[in-house]
Amino acid sequence: MKHARWLEGVVEMGHGAGGRDMADLIEGLFVAAFANDTLTGEEDQAILTLPPGRIAMSTDGFVVSPLFFPGGDIGALAVNGTVNDIAMGGADPKYLSASFILEEGLPLADLRRIVASMAEAARAAGVQIVTGDTKVVERGKGDGVFITTAGVGVVREGARLSARNVRAGDRILVSGTMGDHGVAIMASRAGFDFETDIVSDCAALNGLAAAILDAAPGTRAMRDPTRGGLAAVLNEIAQASGIGMTIREAALPVRPGVAGACEILGLDPLYVANEGKLVAFLPPDEAEAALAAARAHPLGADAALIGVVTADPDRFVEMETLFGGRRMVDWIAGEQLPRIC
Amino acid sequence: MKHARWLEGVVEMGHGAGGRDMADLIEGLFVAAFANDTLTGEEDQAILTLPPGRIAMSTDGFVVSPLFFPGGDIGALAVNGTVNDIAMGGADPKYLSASFILEEGLPLADLRRIVASMAEAARAAGVQIVTGDTKVVERGKGDGVFITTAGVGVVREGARLSARNVRAGDRILVSGTMGDHGVAIMASRAGFDFETDIVSDCAALNGLAAAILDAAPGTRAMRDPTRGGLAAVLNEIAQASGIGMTIREAALPVRPGVAGACEILGLDPLYVANEGKLVAFLPPDEAEAALAAARAHPLGADAALIGVVTADPDRFVEMETLFGGRRMVDWIAGEQLPRIC
Repeated sequence: MKHARWLEGVVEMGHGAGGRDMADLIEGLFVAAFANDTLTGEEDQAILTLPPGRIAMSTDGFVVSPLFFPGGDIGALAVNGTVNDIAMGGADPKYLSASFILEEGLPLADLRRIVASMAEAARAAGVQIVTGDTKVVERGKGDGVFITTAGVGVVREGARLSARNVRAGDRILVSGTMGDHGVAIMASRAGFDFETDIVSDCAALNGLAAAILDAAPGTRAMRDPTRGGLAAVLNEIAQASGIGMTIREAALPVRPGVAGACEILGLDPLYVANEGKLVAFLPPDEAEAALAAARAHPLGADAALIGVVTADPDRFVEMETLFGGRRMVDWIAGEQLPRIC
Repeated sequence: MKHARWLEGVVEMGHGAGGRDMADLIEGLFVAAFANDTLTGEEDQAILTLPPGRIAMSTDGFVVSPLFFPGGDIGALAVNGTVNDIAMGGADPKYLSASFILEEGLPLADLRRIVASMAEAARAAGVQIVTGDTKVVERGKGDGVFITTAGVGVVREGARLSARNVRAGDRILVSGTMGDHGVAIMASRAGFDFETDIVSDCAALNGLAAAILDAAPGTRAMRDPTRGGLAAVLNEIAQASGIGMTIREAALPVRPGVAGACEILGLDPLYVANEGKLVAFLPPDEAEAALAAARAHPLGADAALIGVVTADPDRFVEMETLFGGRRMVDWIAGEQLPRIC
């Protein structure tokens, strides 16, 4: 196991060929970094023991560009993204798989840094990366590295979260400021470096989600507003539940630096991706308890109740603007921010 | 849901942006094709009920080029590859996730054909695709489509398969002819079309594996010889178990057309990928029963016992050649067949 090699050199086609170079990469880099009792380089599958009950399963592919950005990198994103999708189902994430599609020529030092970041994110989220796969594509057929994670978690007793459960009168909670991740990526691409508070919010939400569910066991649905931002989540839930929503712009938390960058970049924070925020739909009598629980959690200090669910057969999402008007919050039809996650 | 659109047009960046175009793609293509009670386009995770016991989890990324080849396509490969990795752990595969990384410009008709092939492969294998993800990268940053599947299955009672379990005296079974998949891909790239029997063996091995385990419950380890071929599997197991092996070239099943194409292409069937074959390591008193069970299964008609495990502290894999000599079967150090799966 030529460990010193991981500090230099680049990914070669042979690292994906199933021979000794691939075995060295797996043992020397992945197994060493993700060290746990279940993961070995010797088996093609992990054997897990899960408690009885319902299991949540999710997957996400990550193609973010650039690979490294203020507040995170593709590795942390890949772990937290799947952890969060599982947590939004009311489940406690336990085990992840990780599949790497590497482009020939990727510096091994970059890969090592990404893998270390994944290991740290997994440790922070309390999950284990137990199985994986590596493929290599020729230069110009990929873009550095793409990572797909999948994961399983145990659904909490009694939880019945669903996009279809939301009812008129429910309250809408966001766990913090909107748009941080997407703006950090766009600012990084545009070469902005003067705004010190424009940092991705990339984080694992399982602890925060559990705190909210403890305080508000009747929570109807939770969702992390990633691609398409808050606007996409609100519209998806309105469609699925057959209701409308009214949110208040004045209640929406947005960092001043993010708001300023959005103006410069021509973005609307409502449509910009977050990677460490959740939206919860709460029965009215549990909304204040959920808000207090969220604010008591380190990732929910800026949590706010931003609006209410309305009986609207047209399933419209509307916003009361800062200036007292009303406008529709539709989801975007095309592309606003490519390769954001 | 503009279903007619799926027959024309190409993947655009907006199909990965989290807005309405992506929702249309998910509902109109993926959810429609993979139809089952668990998968919906509305939730970011699937909720499963698994029987109590140990769970096998695995993942594989697929970057095969070309996307369509004799005997299969990337879709069938992506389903069967993960089904097989789970089955090789002595488990019954149940649920899969599917993550797509699409290149801008991919014809939607191609994607539709791939998705239909995945649905058919899942049906044939008896598994459900229950959750998924879609990303789009710019033209020239991917290569048509990459698919990563992950899956879970239930480990059979009493099964304790491991690469570390193999012992001197064990028998080595292969379930059929070697090299079909890799040679089909290479022949397809080289433009060969005269050999009608050069077809990928892409298939789900869960039924065959179960038949072997029923007949030979003491089976030490199973592995599907994909990248790196049979040579890689034998060397990996020799390393992990600390034993050697001797196989007989005369016993090794290879189709004449594949053997001929290997000569022309300069390939050795021992190193060429298979996608519908397994290698089983059997206690000597169960070897004949396993062979009979394999031959009675449609995917094991050409099964053969090809050699024995030896006590060898050097962990060498050797082959008795057709001409009565012996040669080492090392695993390849570099790259033989790029983008084979």
